[in-house]
Amino acid sequence: LSSSHGESLGPGPEFDLIRRFLQHAAPAPPEVTLGPGDDCALVSAPQLALSSDMSVEGVHFQRDWLTPHEIGYRAAAAALSDLAAMAARPIGLLASLALPDADRGETAVALMAGVTEAAARLGAGVLGGDVTGSLGALALDVTVVGAADAPILRNGARAGDEVWVTGELGGADTALAAWLRGDVPDARARERFARPAPRTREALWLAAHVRPTALIDLSDGLAGDAAHIGAASGVAIVFDLSAIPVFTEGGAGAADTETALRRALSGGEDYELCFTAPPGRVQPLAAAFEAEFGVRLSRVAEAEPGAGVWHRGAGGRQPLRLRGFQHFGGE
Amino acid sequence: LSSSHGESLGPGPEFDLIRRFLQHAAPAPPEVTLGPGDDCALVSAPQLALSSDMSVEGVHFQRDWLTPHEIGYRAAAAALSDLAAMAARPIGLLASLALPDADRGETAVALMAGVTEAAARLGAGVLGGDVTGSLGALALDVTVVGAADAPILRNGARAGDEVWVTGELGGADTALAAWLRGDVPDARARERFARPAPRTREALWLAAHVRPTALIDLSDGLAGDAAHIGAASGVAIVFDLSAIPVFTEGGAGAADTETALRRALSGGEDYELCFTAPPGRVQPLAAAFEAEFGVRLSRVAEAEPGAGVWHRGAGGRQPLRLRGFQHFGGE
Repeated sequence: LSSSHGESLGPGPEFDLIRRFLQHAAPAPPEVTLGPGDDCALVSAPQLALSSDMSVEGVHFQRDWLTPHEIGYRAAAAALSDLAAMAARPIGLLASLALPDADRGETAVALMAGVTEAAARLGAGVLGGDVTGSLGALALDVTVVGAADAPILRNGARAGDEVWVTGELGGADTALAAWLRGDVPDARARERFARPAPRTREALWLAAHVRPTALIDLSDGLAGDAAHIGAASGVAIVFDLSAIPVFTEGGAGAADTETALRRALSGGEDYELCFTAPPGRVQPLAAAFEAEFGVRLSRVAEAEPGAGVWHRGAGGRQPLRLRGFQHFGGE
Repeated sequence: LSSSHGESLGPGPEFDLIRRFLQHAAPAPPEVTLGPGDDCALVSAPQLALSSDMSVEGVHFQRDWLTPHEIGYRAAAAALSDLAAMAARPIGLLASLALPDADRGETAVALMAGVTEAAARLGAGVLGGDVTGSLGALALDVTVVGAADAPILRNGARAGDEVWVTGELGGADTALAAWLRGDVPDARARERFARPAPRTREALWLAAHVRPTALIDLSDGLAGDAAHIGAASGVAIVFDLSAIPVFTEGGAGAADTETALRRALSGGEDYELCFTAPPGRVQPLAAAFEAEFGVRLSRVAEAEPGAGVWHRGAGGRQPLRLRGFQHFGGE
């Protein structure tokens, strides 16, 4: 099978655009037996993980917040994070773009350059996709494909397991809050929103060294995503709120502690990892993890018999009242 | 690995909708080692074919032409046709929906019922996807996954090969033309647009019995899609215009012969197959094919040395002047 990079496409403006996209494509990993240009791409691996993630202008981002390159990067990173959430290794992605007429030139090329960069940073190639018009907003749907030799699901947590998270939580929501009130966000917060880093290498390291019992990525906020692990595993999640690694912004307008904690729990799109492991298994490995990746590991909760999401208060465990993040459109 | 059908999702209106989608899901084929509900689906097969197809309201369809069920069915069928175009066997699909607020109840459920029916008819399951809001139009992106044990590409046609098509061409464009001029389309033409039948079983039969040298599906019109085979294979395609199987509508307002021929050549979204084979290989098998599927096989062109798309005229071969279909939005 030959990998065809656009030279197999006939004439037409849609195909000219696809040819421009493919000029900057990085080499795909060896599992990709046929790249873009035919009716389908072909991938060979013992087991593949697949997930799709749609980003829509006005729902997931506003155009004046992000450059077209960042819009593409962020959409691809969000989708790639779902592979990290299974400890799957990225192979490639398909990107479908719905583009208003004015965006079908340089904007489209910059969007795809962002998608391609996010993929290439994790060793993945662009396998295909679609380009079409849109009478309204710009939308991107990214489908990711990864090698899942030993996937870690949401359903393996057991009562007594510790619940850990990577990194700091609430950064993306901090940027969002600044934009929504008309401010310029803190630079680090903006970076968390505009160029999230899928924890792919971190997830593969954890799979190899810690063997988590359950794993998920944080796209809807820690409280809501931990609830998915709890529901899938048949356990209650009980947080120690003082242990949550809260993103803190700089500057005079920085949020108070309670706001920062709320953002960490219910602000979405941090794309950190949340995982569970039997007691005592993670702590001896935490220093090595942090040295390898420069990313914190924090033990934030415990799995207990029961269901739902709680926090440990003065009078025992109490229900956590925060709702998961569901996009800023008020859905 | 357990197949989790929504019971592993935490609370929230988005997840309630996904739970409703999954209630009517058909059993997936055995290659699906994990269905929807976790961060990714898992599929095991020696080689997978992957393709995405985006459908946008106002670009690919108007809401008053089709029911929500038909919008979903048609979007999934269009994507599944790309698997037929490689002679790949459908395993599953991922469907991402961008939905205006008013569509997030019954309309969304009917859309996904259409997607699910189109998949189930070909033995494929719904593996996952995404649901999000849309401030503008309704959009669906469908990514299909198929088993590609012996894929047939676009690049194998050789000078001297015959070019064949399945079925009749121009039906979907006939319905589109009626809607665009404010008429009610011919019932058979409407069916071709609203519920296209991917030629999956036909492609697998052809792969087994005819062993085509190149294969593509007709999504952009015969002239444009045959040009892709020509460009990928390094040959010219020379049509015999009198041999093209033209869709003919009933009724007093039926199109004239020239219009019907133009629609067959440049009208898109018929989702028939076009394939090439060495001289004499197809004809002895055509009757068996037609008996098996009730679908015509027509020899419409020949591959010759050179490039481009031509037709055989009185004075030898002449360039074909028709342009490929690029959606009714005038892209």
